[in-house]
Amino acid sequence: MYRWNLLFAIACAPLMAASLPLMPYPANVVPRPGRLAIDSSFRVAVEGFSDARLEAAVRRSTDRVFRQTGLYRPGRASQRPVLVVECRAAGAEWPALGEDESYQLDVTADGARLSAPTVTGIQRGMATFVQLIAPGQDGFSVPAIHIEDRPRFPWRGLMLDVARHWMPVEVVLRNLDAMAAVKLNVFHWHLSDDQGFRVESKLFPQLQQAGSDGNFYTQAQVREVVDYARERGIRVIPEFDIPGHTTSWLAGMPQLASAPGPYQLQRRWGIFEPTLDPTREETYQVLDRFLGEMAALFPDRYFHIGGDEVEDAQWKQSAAIQAFARQHHLASSPELHAYFNQRVQALLKKRGKIMIGWDEVLAPGLASDTVIQSWRGQESLAAASRKGYRGILSSGYYLDYLKPAATHYAVDPMDGAAHALDADQAARILGGEACMFSEYVSAETVDSRIWPTMAAIAERFWSPREVKDTVDMYARLDPVSRGLEWTNLRHRANYQPMLDRLAGAGPVEPLRILADGCESLGIDVRRDARKYTSLVDLNRFVDAVRPESESVRHLEQAARGLTPADLAALRATMRAWVENDARLAPVAGNAFVGELAALSRELSQLGAIGLESLGYLENGKTAPENWIAQKKQVLASMERPSAEVALAAVRPVRLLVEAASKRNQGAFRR
Amino acid sequence: MYRWNLLFAIACAPLMAASLPLMPYPANVVPRPGRLAIDSSFRVAVEGFSDARLEAAVRRSTDRVFRQTGLYRPGRASQRPVLVVECRAAGAEWPALGEDESYQLDVTADGARLSAPTVTGIQRGMATFVQLIAPGQDGFSVPAIHIEDRPRFPWRGLMLDVARHWMPVEVVLRNLDAMAAVKLNVFHWHLSDDQGFRVESKLFPQLQQAGSDGNFYTQAQVREVVDYARERGIRVIPEFDIPGHTTSWLAGMPQLASAPGPYQLQRRWGIFEPTLDPTREETYQVLDRFLGEMAALFPDRYFHIGGDEVEDAQWKQSAAIQAFARQHHLASSPELHAYFNQRVQALLKKRGKIMIGWDEVLAPGLASDTVIQSWRGQESLAAASRKGYRGILSSGYYLDYLKPAATHYAVDPMDGAAHALDADQAARILGGEACMFSEYVSAETVDSRIWPTMAAIAERFWSPREVKDTVDMYARLDPVSRGLEWTNLRHRANYQPMLDRLAGAGPVEPLRILADGCESLGIDVRRDARKYTSLVDLNRFVDAVRPESESVRHLEQAARGLTPADLAALRATMRAWVENDARLAPVAGNAFVGELAALSRELSQLGAIGLESLGYLENGKTAPENWIAQKKQVLASMERPSAEVALAAVRPVRLLVEAASKRNQGAFRR
Repeated sequence: MYRWNLLFAIACAPLMAASLPLMPYPANVVPRPGRLAIDSSFRVAVEGFSDARLEAAVRRSTDRVFRQTGLYRPGRASQRPVLVVECRAAGAEWPALGEDESYQLDVTADGARLSAPTVTGIQRGMATFVQLIAPGQDGFSVPAIHIEDRPRFPWRGLMLDVARHWMPVEVVLRNLDAMAAVKLNVFHWHLSDDQGFRVESKLFPQLQQAGSDGNFYTQAQVREVVDYARERGIRVIPEFDIPGHTTSWLAGMPQLASAPGPYQLQRRWGIFEPTLDPTREETYQVLDRFLGEMAALFPDRYFHIGGDEVEDAQWKQSAAIQAFARQHHLASSPELHAYFNQRVQALLKKRGKIMIGWDEVLAPGLASDTVIQSWRGQESLAAASRKGYRGILSSGYYLDYLKPAATHYAVDPMDGAAHALDADQAARILGGEACMFSEYVSAETVDSRIWPTMAAIAERFWSPREVKDTVDMYARLDPVSRGLEWTNLRHRANYQPMLDRLAGAGPVEPLRILADGCESLGIDVRRDARKYTSLVDLNRFVDAVRPESESVRHLEQAARGLTPADLAALRATMRAWVENDARLAPVAGNAFVGELAALSRELSQLGAIGLESLGYLENGKTAPENWIAQKKQVLASMERPSAEVALAAVRPVRLLVEAASKRNQGAFRR
Repeated sequence: MYRWNLLFAIACAPLMAASLPLMPYPANVVPRPGRLAIDSSFRVAVEGFSDARLEAAVRRSTDRVFRQTGLYRPGRASQRPVLVVECRAAGAEWPALGEDESYQLDVTADGARLSAPTVTGIQRGMATFVQLIAPGQDGFSVPAIHIEDRPRFPWRGLMLDVARHWMPVEVVLRNLDAMAAVKLNVFHWHLSDDQGFRVESKLFPQLQQAGSDGNFYTQAQVREVVDYARERGIRVIPEFDIPGHTTSWLAGMPQLASAPGPYQLQRRWGIFEPTLDPTREETYQVLDRFLGEMAALFPDRYFHIGGDEVEDAQWKQSAAIQAFARQHHLASSPELHAYFNQRVQALLKKRGKIMIGWDEVLAPGLASDTVIQSWRGQESLAAASRKGYRGILSSGYYLDYLKPAATHYAVDPMDGAAHALDADQAARILGGEACMFSEYVSAETVDSRIWPTMAAIAERFWSPREVKDTVDMYARLDPVSRGLEWTNLRHRANYQPMLDRLAGAGPVEPLRILADGCESLGIDVRRDARKYTSLVDLNRFVDAVRPESESVRHLEQAARGLTPADLAALRATMRAWVENDARLAPVAGNAFVGELAALSRELSQLGAIGLESLGYLENGKTAPENWIAQKKQVLASMERPSAEVALAAVRPVRLLVEAASKRNQGAFRR
């Protein structure tokens, strides 16, 4: 039915990308001449199949079009629809693995037509349509185009840890909207961990009462989230991490532990000893009832039991557990863990659920339908696949490390060991999930740590494998990130207020200039920087600053391009940096700003080095070798973390120093 | 009971203002040594009287403290309260004119105590407390202080026109939050006008059906707004503007008109002919039932009937109306209007309501308890007062002109003709109301056209008359404006996304630099700029740009100060301006950016003039006279509006040119 003209798409991708800020980039894009005007008469009409979910999707898309353009919205819709939607059938009642998400979009100067076999496909097409709207010569318009699109992987997810820092329901909802905007289809909800048990259990209310500080989702809220996700074609998979990472369970139910209690909610980060007792029947009786309660709450067929990082100290120290192990011929802690998993799997199976777990659950005897989520990497994933298990990749997509989007974008689930798999084995790799563990994020900062990076990862999961040019990705990422603002995401909105807060009554612009030149560092740096717990405020400069600086990236592009406009931008910024330290200084006497003294000084030094480099470039001179060596040394010294951020501004200045060290600079003279 | 040490307050105001970003500035402020730390243990306790409204106020204030500081919020509150609230009584069930709003706030290093005779007084004190929180040497804290405070005027309002552009209920709610943050107590809701009838009538549903394009408040929403306002100590006064400005009524009820219909909703701006027929009994029968319905919906004792700008063409053209006038000895249209007002007043009185109207309602025979809202000015207001009427001033507080905060701040209800009033007459001037008519604002832009200017006007209404230093006001306005972000107001938040929208996939930073150097112009310019109607999109540069540029104001301060930090800021900005036009140019081919070509070029020219001026200043030279004359001419030519904005950047550059024209510049040499 569809002509999946991949070769054409590949040929076109670099050509189109410059003008079409789409992400994930569609499988097949054919540009046509002309544009379709988008003005106040914009209206969507539905032909063919329709239901409440489709109508809601049309309403949301229409709202989005008017919000993102700021067009006057008439009280009465116009007669002639601008976009006709043609859906063939509802699709599954609940979003399900493998649902057909394909769509076809045709735009001419006279109108647009979106068709898809399912409501979910229509949603994916709508997400593309709103990304196509751009300001132009005569107001807003969409280019005439033919798009045929469908996902590369059926499992494209985001995992959000709401245990280590509490994420109120509105955080979840707005992230679901953003996920839908980039065609993600799995929300993996990490609902319990040592630091928090975040769902209301009516059967065992002591779980949330003792395990959440009062911060948990009611069952009504869970239903709201699940319905909200369904409307957007997103599956919701709950994770209750057992038998390790269970301190929060044991705060209310110490009888489940492998060692006597009492237990208190964990406030620190790490791997801790409290572990469910896999040898007592009461454990399974409680889990049976609890999992039954949760299975009814979460309609998806898949259910995540965690299973990672099981610390076996309590097991080894317990004579009863060791006796049980001997009696059942369980020779080691991994075997005991495997026994536990098989018992849990049986409980889930009884409820019609398929188990998912992290790499560690893969052990002899594991049911063949289990899905393995790999934090260990492609080798581990490929090994599972060779054994017949389906899997998804998360290694390489850990958002809490705050790595550049390009780093994650370069990781492909089919790379490395997966490359050697045969077709059947390869087909068992279902896709991937990015993970946001929440040691160093709060409800206020989490959006800016997930987005826009998540959009690049979403492209990795959706678009053809060959769409992988990093420069091209970044050219599209900026406008896509801005577009996500209209989903109510706070990834850009919270930046300025968080800086304002630090400045108090003092001037905030110099603080913003410094922040624009910095990048926040992730868990690998922060865990060693100071004593963090779940009770520590996340309201400092490092929390306001973004993981990846758009400004710095633009300067890097300019330092590579060195066109007259590039030189203008570079000069303006370098001079602003030079002056900035004097401007920031009066804000001192404020601890939040005080910790930035060294960074601020260095930014001004960078500006001076940048200007010297530009001087060489513009005068067509090559910088002396000893100058270059000395500056490179200075730049290297500025690379160590300070106040838990990196001075990203070093990067474009290094490019300028390198450019100044090359001959034939006459072309840059103005 | 209170020692209103006004003299002391006046003496302290200039001293304190620099360190305390409070607005409105309290009547009496006594600084003390020390500071009270605000950290995660922050908690409010209530002593003495309490009720649901007080508890809600405590909850909101606590939320606000945690939001604005970003402190970790524990699931369980700490034992020891940081702020003790002591309320003596509930006060009136509904906020009412003349309610005691006084409070006393004492802060020491050990704790804070807020006491007030009413819940409303506690709310006012809470608004002060959150403004006192500032970042410092050891995190957030509040200075030790003694404050005794009460309002100067009992009527401190904001009028919002929701007829010309529709303002959804969330716009109203967030503005109520912001009003409470600056101690305003009257929300005047302009609910009907030629362009829209915005309330659901159950008795006459044709009013909203034919008169609102579907954009009206349900009665449930009205109740929500009234309750929300009550919780914040704000009265809600509805205005139904009659007998003129009634085209929207007549769309559904043409039988009320002074000339045969049919009538269509008006889309243009101005004064129009359709007017209620003041001579037919049916008019009063309908008004009786309608006003009865609305009187039950709005609990405040005061009810606004508009009454402004009655265009009498229909009356003059109607033989029946003219015959009625002769028969009743009504010699002119104003007398006919007065007759109408007296009839309406009787209908309101029957419902226990006191009438308010604009200046034009003041005519012989008007009931003595009527309140006159003056758009004509202090002379008109004083005249009403001399005749025994109470009044409020709105002239000078028209926000839709987008004048600087300082312009409004300089207007005092007791200035001009009011100065000559005796004590009794003066006491009849109850306060004032700022007015936001909505010809050129949408739900997206209205916040940034009201705020932060409204905070300065609120100070005029609340603080002692002697608090009027403009420099001091602006020094406080910036942090107060930032603080208002935490009320959910969008006055700052929508700026960047609206610019992003214009840039499309192009670079947005140069657009932001240009926007920061511009100021949006108001109704006096826009009404002649192009053909506007209620259907025109408000999504251009002029709509994104702010009415008053903080950046430009800071540059003006720097150009007056010329300290080393000032010079650094000026140099950095002037250079950025010089380079900006080249950076913006690549965005062209986009109509939204295209209309800014002249502005952008001029900003770069300004940067060059600024740098030349700085050159003279830094080298201790006086600029040649012909250079000065020529530059001043160039600057003057840049003052005409372009794309409906003013190039505010001219102002600091003019200051620099002037500074460079003076002798003895050696002090500025670095």
